[in-house]
Amino acid sequence: MFAARLRQVWTSLADGGRKLLKLPQDSGSPSGIQALALDLVSERGEATNMARANAIIRQYTSLAQEQREAFHLFLAQNFLPDPARLRAAAEAYLATPSSETIAVLTLASEPPRRELIRRMNIAPGATALLVGMRETLLSEIRKQPELRPLEQDLRHLLTSWFNRGFLELKRIDWNTSAAVLEKVIAYEAVHEIRGWSDLRRRLAPDRRCFAFFHPSLPGEPLIFVEVALCQGLASKIDPLLSVKTPGDDFARPDTAIFYSISNCQPGLRGISFGNLLIKQVVEELRAELPGLKRFATLSPIPGFRRWLNEQIAANGESAILPEERMAMNHQAGGDGKSLTAFLDIDREKAEHLDGAVKLALQRLLATYLTAANGGKGPEDPVARFHLGNGARLDRINWGAHLSERGMAESIGMMVNYVYEPDMIEGNHEQFVSEGRVAYSTEVGDLLPKRKLRAGIARTPVHDRQAIDTQ
Amino acid sequence: MFAARLRQVWTSLADGGRKLLKLPQDSGSPSGIQALALDLVSERGEATNMARANAIIRQYTSLAQEQREAFHLFLAQNFLPDPARLRAAAEAYLATPSSETIAVLTLASEPPRRELIRRMNIAPGATALLVGMRETLLSEIRKQPELRPLEQDLRHLLTSWFNRGFLELKRIDWNTSAAVLEKVIAYEAVHEIRGWSDLRRRLAPDRRCFAFFHPSLPGEPLIFVEVALCQGLASKIDPLLSVKTPGDDFARPDTAIFYSISNCQPGLRGISFGNLLIKQVVEELRAELPGLKRFATLSPIPGFRRWLNEQIAANGESAILPEERMAMNHQAGGDGKSLTAFLDIDREKAEHLDGAVKLALQRLLATYLTAANGGKGPEDPVARFHLGNGARLDRINWGAHLSERGMAESIGMMVNYVYEPDMIEGNHEQFVSEGRVAYSTEVGDLLPKRKLRAGIARTPVHDRQAIDTQ
Amino acid sequence: MFAARLRQVWTSLADGGRKLLKLPQDSGSPSGIQALALDLVSERGEATNMARANAIIRQYTSLAQEQREAFHLFLAQNFLPDPARLRAAAEAYLATPSSETIAVLTLASEPPRRELIRRMNIAPGATALLVGMRETLLSEIRKQPELRPLEQDLRHLLTSWFNRGFLELKRIDWNTSAAVLEKVIAYEAVHEIRGWSDLRRRLAPDRRCFAFFHPSLPGEPLIFVEVALCQGLASKIDPLLSVKTPGDDFARPDTAIFYSISNCQPGLRGISFGNLLIKQVVEELRAELPGLKRFATLSPIPGFRRWLNEQIAANGESAILPEERMAMNHQAGGDGKSLTAFLDIDREKAEHLDGAVKLALQRLLATYLTAANGGKGPEDPVARFHLGNGARLDRINWGAHLSERGMAESIGMMVNYVYEPDMIEGNHEQFVSEGRVAYSTEVGDLLPKRKLRAGIARTPVHDRQAIDTQ
Amino acid sequence: MFAARLRQVWTSLADGGRKLLKLPQDSGSPSGIQALALDLVSERGEATNMARANAIIRQYTSLAQEQREAFHLFLAQNFLPDPARLRAAAEAYLATPSSETIAVLTLASEPPRRELIRRMNIAPGATALLVGMRETLLSEIRKQPELRPLEQDLRHLLTSWFNRGFLELKRIDWNTSAAVLEKVIAYEAVHEIRGWSDLRRRLAPDRRCFAFFHPSLPGEPLIFVEVALCQGLASKIDPLLSVKTPGDDFARPDTAIFYSISNCQPGLRGISFGNLLIKQVVEELRAELPGLKRFATLSPIPGFRRWLNEQIAANGESAILPEERMAMNHQAGGDGKSLTAFLDIDREKAEHLDGAVKLALQRLLATYLTAANGGKGPEDPVARFHLGNGARLDRINWGAHLSERGMAESIGMMVNYVYEPDMIEGNHEQFVSEGRVAYSTEVGDLLPKRKLRAGIARTPVHDRQAIDTQ
Repeated sequence: MFAARLRQVWTSLADGGRKLLKLPQDSGSPSGIQALALDLVSERGEATNMARANAIIRQYTSLAQEQREAFHLFLAQNFLPDPARLRAAAEAYLATPSSETIAVLTLASEPPRRELIRRMNIAPGATALLVGMRETLLSEIRKQPELRPLEQDLRHLLTSWFNRGFLELKRIDWNTSAAVLEKVIAYEAVHEIRGWSDLRRRLAPDRRCFAFFHPSLPGEPLIFVEVALCQGLASKIDPLLSVKTPGDDFARPDTAIFYSISNCQPGLRGISFGNLLIKQVVEELRAELPGLKRFATLSPIPGFRRWLNEQIAANGESAILPEERMAMNHQAGGDGKSLTAFLDIDREKAEHLDGAVKLALQRLLATYLTAANGGKGPEDPVARFHLGNGARLDRINWGAHLSERGMAESIGMMVNYVYEPDMIEGNHEQFVSEGRVAYSTEVGDLLPKRKLRAGIARTPVHDRQAIDTQ
Repeated sequence: MFAARLRQVWTSLADGGRKLLKLPQDSGSPSGIQALALDLVSERGEATNMARANAIIRQYTSLAQEQREAFHLFLAQNFLPDPARLRAAAEAYLATPSSETIAVLTLASEPPRRELIRRMNIAPGATALLVGMRETLLSEIRKQPELRPLEQDLRHLLTSWFNRGFLELKRIDWNTSAAVLEKVIAYEAVHEIRGWSDLRRRLAPDRRCFAFFHPSLPGEPLIFVEVALCQGLASKIDPLLSVKTPGDDFARPDTAIFYSISNCQPGLRGISFGNLLIKQVVEELRAELPGLKRFATLSPIPGFRRWLNEQIAANGESAILPEERMAMNHQAGGDGKSLTAFLDIDREKAEHLDGAVKLALQRLLATYLTAANGGKGPEDPVARFHLGNGARLDRINWGAHLSERGMAESIGMMVNYVYEPDMIEGNHEQFVSEGRVAYSTEVGDLLPKRKLRAGIARTPVHDRQAIDTQ
Repeated sequence: MFAARLRQVWTSLADGGRKLLKLPQDSGSPSGIQALALDLVSERGEATNMARANAIIRQYTSLAQEQREAFHLFLAQNFLPDPARLRAAAEAYLATPSSETIAVLTLASEPPRRELIRRMNIAPGATALLVGMRETLLSEIRKQPELRPLEQDLRHLLTSWFNRGFLELKRIDWNTSAAVLEKVIAYEAVHEIRGWSDLRRRLAPDRRCFAFFHPSLPGEPLIFVEVALCQGLASKIDPLLSVKTPGDDFARPDTAIFYSISNCQPGLRGISFGNLLIKQVVEELRAELPGLKRFATLSPIPGFRRWLNEQIAANGESAILPEERMAMNHQAGGDGKSLTAFLDIDREKAEHLDGAVKLALQRLLATYLTAANGGKGPEDPVARFHLGNGARLDRINWGAHLSERGMAESIGMMVNYVYEPDMIEGNHEQFVSEGRVAYSTEVGDLLPKRKLRAGIARTPVHDRQAIDTQ
Repeated sequence: MFAARLRQVWTSLADGGRKLLKLPQDSGSPSGIQALALDLVSERGEATNMARANAIIRQYTSLAQEQREAFHLFLAQNFLPDPARLRAAAEAYLATPSSETIAVLTLASEPPRRELIRRMNIAPGATALLVGMRETLLSEIRKQPELRPLEQDLRHLLTSWFNRGFLELKRIDWNTSAAVLEKVIAYEAVHEIRGWSDLRRRLAPDRRCFAFFHPSLPGEPLIFVEVALCQGLASKIDPLLSVKTPGDDFARPDTAIFYSISNCQPGLRGISFGNLLIKQVVEELRAELPGLKRFATLSPIPGFRRWLNEQIAANGESAILPEERMAMNHQAGGDGKSLTAFLDIDREKAEHLDGAVKLALQRLLATYLTAANGGKGPEDPVARFHLGNGARLDRINWGAHLSERGMAESIGMMVNYVYEPDMIEGNHEQFVSEGRVAYSTEVGDLLPKRKLRAGIARTPVHDRQAIDTQ
């Protein structure tokens, strides 16, 4: 009720204000919107501001592409702090640095642009529009670095407004509105959802889906995660994606597999929700299904193939351990051209591959994912996300993702990262401070022999030098 | 469901974190909370931050008064920007002032304290605690100006978080929860609500009450307004407050009287919601009751008596116009001691007073409320609020508020400010830019004769000099 | 929360009860369920009844087809009133008919079967199961009339429970849950919905859809109606069904076209909601869109072709008026075989047909739909529904429904019935008491000349004899 | 939204209908309402029925007391089944009793009055009005037995409509609306709630309150129960009722005490919800607080004093066992007038009483509450309710209820009935089929020595003869 009413308030005020401001009806002329923005931030009274904020939102919506760009530039280059005041504050700080002179400088340096954006946000629908504006800026900015100050202020305010204390976790299921579900289909970024029956499968009784929402973007998921309930760690992605009804495995699930996590709002890039989402969902699931013993992912390794190519380019045959080369030669009939065959694996071969080549590739992947990289940890972005959240690298799955993309990224392999509530904090600390990766004994066994075997509790270090020095 | 679950997340993480951080169980020791705050802002990873934010909230809650003060001071004096970076940015700006050097300076001067507060806000219940912290600071700050930087940062963030785009308007009525109604009783600041039956009267079918809420403070009104529906402008407050069922006037109300508006959160002082509230409520009421033709207040004039005393102290008998003095003397039997009798009116006299004295007092009130004060407008805070919102001073009501408070503040008078949708913008502009007050012909008639009579449309100026020069 | 909990109550009680009752775990044996039903109705205490009701529901669900039939028969032939008491009451009534002896007889003749069904309904999910049971019975009953008493009691109770005072009207739109929307797709009975994008079109901003729900069948629409908002009376169905975005007509709709109304629950057959639905939806739409001036249907005439065939079979060429025959012959080149060509119209011809044949067919349809039939009114079921609700036959649309079905039913014609709020009561009375059909002047003009032309207000009679006597 | 809209539908139809029916505007004349009722049940079409149902509801509301009585009588004596049809059905049944002839008779004997009431129920607000009508009838009927058929039909329909499958369990707490809480204050029938602060105590964190609601009586609790969470069985009522904040006992409650259960709707008398309410609340509490080990009542014994007086009147001194008399005489100093002193106990004495008299009274109460009464069980209504629900008599508490009412009813004693989930079914069966009361060893110890001591599991029989034969 109120939402509709509020819109009316705005409309009526906008109309009243328009008369007063002698604005053309929704003229959408760039000069008009610039004048409005200047007035909005200069006026002291709020009565007219409401009308102006609304007018800006409406006019912005109807601006053409280049008019928008002009408006962005106008915002980015104007609305600067008062120069006299800022100069005085800067000089005072340099003369006497103190808590007080800093406070004065902080205030003096805040650009009125931020207040302008805050006032724009009063209008209904403004938050969504500002998120969209930042999305546009993030791509425009590459060509036009002058837009940076505007993007910086939007990021500042959106970070504040989308503080995780204001987010709401909601379950997405078949009782969710079609309007939201349609967005889940559109936003899924990891494993494409091919229509409503595909979606229905992903929301079946043996699945869970949760999303964060913000009160000012109703019906707009910010990020969502898809979970499969099963028995044991899932080792292949296809059975999770295929459209068929849940099997017997579902009867008493002991494991929750997070198999897809998608950010929905490019305009909120850099404002991260993912780790809190996973942790809250773990708690939700534990409360709902006390039988769940394990919380893990089935994750791609998007950076592996590229890294492997680099290794081979840099080190040639010595990218492989001597004993691996020997075994591979033996298996292949001794032609010694191990590396060529190596990267030439197609879906067909991958499905039936066994023996030395498979072992060598698994070892290389383990090496890639446990590299300390001088304290920074492995480079793979998915690995960094989960390891940074405190997860443990638990298992490498051969032939897990035989799609074109899976073959291209990681020669069909996927990995499980495990979230063990008691270990999260320790794993996280280790990873963040020293780049050390927590991994299971099973993964440890893949690593070169001279390394210590180490189980979960010891969360041993394995670093990149291993390769370099072989 | 999620709220309870979220709490669990926090508790469990806090416990996990606690083990890791080797924190004593809820020790509440100030040094403990200081260490937590330092870690919270220095850590890069979020896993531990969640535990820490929660631990800070819990420990803060159990700190004793002086421990809190010490923590406030600790926050206010630490968490400063990186000095090298800030110095470099300040010098670069002074050397070359530009949009880009400003942007760098803006970032460099933001104290990490703000990020600390943002991270604290992740914990459940944190928003309410931060609002409460600012309330405490606002009183501590008088003795301890060193706390200013902390208060300044809280204000900055709360202003951003309580942006009116995020507020929800809700009707308060007898179907509202007891938990919220109890707060309405407690927060009513203008006309005390004396218990549940008094409250019930104020929520009867001929009344309306609306409040703003914020999603992070559920069940906590930020500000609310009480409205009486009646026929014609209400001229006395007592009938509106008396506990009796609605009379015949309610059958076809044509007027909505806003007779009480109360801010509820001292910790949000300076972050104003009042004017938007009134305007949205006007729209709500128009939609619900198309028969309503007028939206007005019945308002106190808290500053009148004090101003009048000052006038008399400064000007003596000449505070009164010669013709007023003549008429008063005539009526009183000619003793000339008009001023003494003047301020000596008690409830009894006020109720039956008529003639010259009454007229002179009404004229003085009109003078007080229409004074331009060199462009600032009248000083009375209630008047400033409504006139600044674009309302018009419409009527002065004698004997409207004969309580002790009403007599002390305004010799029992109250006024009606009228909100006329079409005039709001114009009235506001005039008032804000020039201090000119919009008033009705009826009020104009009370003003000294040499002034132009002027109606609503002309919104004439009457300024304080009028008195000084008589 | 409570729903889930309630299920637990039942489960735990059922388990407790099962031990007590020495029931096999979900044995589902027909004899088991019969024993349960006997106990359920004989027991005085409620503690055990809860367990039993739940056990019956669960066992029934797992019965095989013939076991269910056996259980139905068991229910239908047992649970009879106490014979001694009924005999006494019947004799007492026959001896002294009075309000009191009737009351005694009413009580004595109520079969315990009804109390059994009431007690079954305590279990969660029972209402849906009982509705489904009646659906099954309605088809079984044709072969097994002995089931009638059970069906009669179910109908009695469902009529009472689905009293329209208990139904909730809800708008169905794109914010409705996928679970409900899926049912709308499945239940649409008039114009098939071919998937989600088709559905999305029917819920676009220029459309409305409303359904009745019952609190005990959450997520289950009982009946729904689809409405198109447009300018002027819609005369063809295709534009309403085509998947394209709303055009300009939507800008200021003045007419609401009810183009599809579907009952969803075969188990509630004979318990009608349709007329109240239409009337409530008219009120909803008037409140939402004050610009709407007309409320009408675009309806099929499912019985026309069959009736026309009967007419021709019975009357041969004289089914057509002499002047019509003359005109048709003239147009066709005078071969006189008017009737053969007449019924031979395919989609192609219908689209371009004009002149005498078209006029004759329209006249025949008008005749069919306005027939008084000796006080019963026309036979067409759709016509009876709308005319019985008080609508007026307003227009006959040629080439309105050129699909296979439309050609087969009504040679591609459709009609508009108009709901005029002020006339509903009068039209209804006339139709119900005398079979007189309200029609527009436009329809009147199609009827044979010797009939009075009559407009809306006069709601003239045109009866079937017209044809017979020609 | 829809509720308000529905009201409009009705109003507009009623107005339309009124014109048609030539009804005076809300005339409220008894003859008018009688005519409406006749039409409502005779009309076949629904369009006019809606108007008529609404008109009946509105007119009934404005009828004076005696006009209502006349209307009740009119309803009770008319709307009889068709005599010819009923006679034929009765005769057919008597001639050939069978499932089919019964079914015909059932239909033929249902009075049209029931259909009339069903149609009245279509109007908004009708359900509440019909519940109120039955309340009135239940008192009128004593003087006017002719009203019985109407009351019987109302009961029949209300039983069907308020089937427990349609009820909703809701928690009542301080977040509940004031409108509902006000009713809880008004309806509390066991321990008066003296205003809002008293109510607040009863809804404090260590308390629970649950109620059943029906969708057609929104905001109207049908029955509610108040629960105190504590450690161990509560033995006195005062601590539960006193207005003070929860003490340490609340920290880890192991017992839920049901200390008050109140029916709210006299018009639903005889349609019982109490037992299901208790059982569902037990499940709710177990789910919320897994630490709860015991579910018990603290109950009055309203019938004890009266029964005791009867015993003494009938048996004189032999109402007491010889050994009790001896002990009492001994204690009192041997005057032998045991019985006189016996009933003369005031609050003061009761508080400090110990020894023989107390023991004798406790024994008598145990005897009263465990009497089998020839298979019917004890007469006390509260005892019958809980024992019939499957509870066990667990403890007799001396000095538990020292108020005037408590002294008058049971000489200040109260008892605990314990609900043990596993025993409920067995206890219930025993009680309902044989009148045998389940009691604890502690209660068994109070009973005369020759009786078997028996614990919970054995649920021994103790019957009234015990007293008669002493």
